[in-house]
Amino acid sequence: MNRSLITLTTDFGTRDGFVGQMKGVILAINPHCGLIDVTHDIESYAILHCALVLKGISRYFPLGTVHVAVVDPGVGTNRRGVALRAGGQVYVGPDNGLFTLVLGSEVEWQMRHIENSDYMLPDPHPTFHGRDVFAPVAAHLSLGKSFESLGAHVIDPVVLSIPQIRHTQRGIEGEVIYIDRFGNLMTNIEARRLTGKIDSITVGNAQIGGLSRFFAEVPAGEPLALINSFGYLEIAVNRGDTSAQFGLGRGASVEVRWS
Amino acid sequence: MNRSLITLTTDFGTRDGFVGQMKGVILAINPHCGLIDVTHDIESYAILHCALVLKGISRYFPLGTVHVAVVDPGVGTNRRGVALRAGGQVYVGPDNGLFTLVLGSEVEWQMRHIENSDYMLPDPHPTFHGRDVFAPVAAHLSLGKSFESLGAHVIDPVVLSIPQIRHTQRGIEGEVIYIDRFGNLMTNIEARRLTGKIDSITVGNAQIGGLSRFFAEVPAGEPLALINSFGYLEIAVNRGDTSAQFGLGRGASVEVRWS
Amino acid sequence: MNRSLITLTTDFGTRDGFVGQMKGVILAINPHCGLIDVTHDIESYAILHCALVLKGISRYFPLGTVHVAVVDPGVGTNRRGVALRAGGQVYVGPDNGLFTLVLGSEVEWQMRHIENSDYMLPDPHPTFHGRDVFAPVAAHLSLGKSFESLGAHVIDPVVLSIPQIRHTQRGIEGEVIYIDRFGNLMTNIEARRLTGKIDSITVGNAQIGGLSRFFAEVPAGEPLALINSFGYLEIAVNRGDTSAQFGLGRGASVEVRWS
Repeated sequence: MNRSLITLTTDFGTRDGFVGQMKGVILAINPHCGLIDVTHDIESYAILHCALVLKGISRYFPLGTVHVAVVDPGVGTNRRGVALRAGGQVYVGPDNGLFTLVLGSEVEWQMRHIENSDYMLPDPHPTFHGRDVFAPVAAHLSLGKSFESLGAHVIDPVVLSIPQIRHTQRGIEGEVIYIDRFGNLMTNIEARRLTGKIDSITVGNAQIGGLSRFFAEVPAGEPLALINSFGYLEIAVNRGDTSAQFGLGRGASVEVRWS
Repeated sequence: MNRSLITLTTDFGTRDGFVGQMKGVILAINPHCGLIDVTHDIESYAILHCALVLKGISRYFPLGTVHVAVVDPGVGTNRRGVALRAGGQVYVGPDNGLFTLVLGSEVEWQMRHIENSDYMLPDPHPTFHGRDVFAPVAAHLSLGKSFESLGAHVIDPVVLSIPQIRHTQRGIEGEVIYIDRFGNLMTNIEARRLTGKIDSITVGNAQIGGLSRFFAEVPAGEPLALINSFGYLEIAVNRGDTSAQFGLGRGASVEVRWS
Repeated sequence: MNRSLITLTTDFGTRDGFVGQMKGVILAINPHCGLIDVTHDIESYAILHCALVLKGISRYFPLGTVHVAVVDPGVGTNRRGVALRAGGQVYVGPDNGLFTLVLGSEVEWQMRHIENSDYMLPDPHPTFHGRDVFAPVAAHLSLGKSFESLGAHVIDPVVLSIPQIRHTQRGIEGEVIYIDRFGNLMTNIEARRLTGKIDSITVGNAQIGGLSRFFAEVPAGEPLALINSFGYLEIAVNRGDTSAQFGLGRGASVEVRWS
């Protein structure tokens, strides 16, 4: 039998020990699980950032992996804690939009409101559901405890409004939705939207002639566009920090023109 | 039987591979242990920071977990290396105050001076006891090797002097002892000290009317006070960086007035 | 039997989830392996940095450990992907010099060009061989799949040109090749090169009288020189950031004079 795996994705950083506390809670319940750090460097309170990371990782993990995601500015309010079953994986976290992209890519899913206190630590602290609710829920689920007993069905999860692309006379227009660690600009334009022959891609003052396949197709310091490993159009500079070089951030407009 | 768990808490960062070397040493001795990163982002040489993190995590881990903690500005001097058994857990690191808060919360503990070279790598490097002494000691202890054979009893461990609260005519006065990753100001005032009905909490130019339970009880950008998940009074700004907003750091005075 | 271990060393950071995706790929193939983060904070595109870290860690891990290293500015070009067997360990990554120091310290090694698509994910993305090539290769090798079947022998791996020391009339001259997390200046002068009695060590405006064994042999804020835990001459300031204090970086000259 495969051992159970639990991944962790948070905006907690590691330096305060918050994540360490969550790991202790999980291992006290299931000492044999494999604990996988995805990242604790999600930008503080950045729900879309976390949603993108979750979407990116989940298809690669073995069936049955439990993913704990905690970016939780509303902790303590009446925002729900939820567990989600989708695509053969399980997700646990606050119902604040974190699972938007997972939900958007699955036909079938089931979500439960976490209400059953048997799955939580006693007296959950109102500012740290990551430790007192989500970590123990994940650990219990990884041991095979019933998903259905968590609580009521949730049929109306919170979903983020993701910026949509616009069709223009000469092509499509999207925007930068994420900047990665290297400064590359990821747009909201999926590969499957690039149905025409590309004449040019314009972002800020830069105009790019077409798609490259990888960074080093252009000289160091030169801009390029490619389909990134998430499947989205990305603007990059070979070996450079695109965001800094162009002074562009999230929300910057990107226009693709057909020839 | 539960597998053995070893946690790591250091100020080494990860980028130089120092922590990687420690992990190799541990796994070469006990390849089956579970290795848990707590953090490697303790502020350089910040012993109190590390002591707080250790105190925070240890109660959540399964009995028998071995915690390696290395913030060690005196490495190579005659400061002792020690192992500590307290509260069903084991701690390994330099005797420089790192275990102050663990010792302060346990009635019974036993500490040993690490003297037995059977538990160390040959010829420990004078600047890296983390790798050559503490890592192998932890690995051997995780395999069940004798704690008592490490070396002599230590009955006078180094303890940090933690700032104490003062009782004033109208309440109590404490200070900020730690700033977390979000900029929240953690004070040295434990929840059990808040015995009166609170009229106001003053820190820098901010005056707060009483305790909140969680951040989102006040509008974004507004200050609040709450009992944090460590059990201490904390000053925060909902979704904001309190330390930056108020220009306050460690040592800032915090006054609680009873009504 | 020992469980198989796979280490990860990259310049990806963690916040984009790239490393999380690699972990998923590995665990989907070998769910029982132990996954060890060495670091994901290698400076972007800094091949020598990664080479130093790999050299530093590898001797400490159990025989048979598989080390995945990805700093890969040439991803997608015709630079080869390779697997290397040396010193009882296995290394997987791009053939761009990452393994220079491992190769330099082993008499016997064998390297293979990764050509066999059975070891890769289908349709590897041209910008992310870390996930689609190196991660699955490592996972398959950790399961005992044939090393020899990966592809053709590589007998001419790319090696970095490491700055060499010069012998002068009065001693030797080297340079700073790495600055660690604490700001310490690591030079290219190996301990075994220090064959004479040292009169002075000069770096920038600082002159140091001889070797210390550890940092705290000099007062806080004072410079010293020692043999670091990698076995190289290092210039440090006790409890200080040497690089910042002296305004010195990589390439700074270091002169050792014999008495």
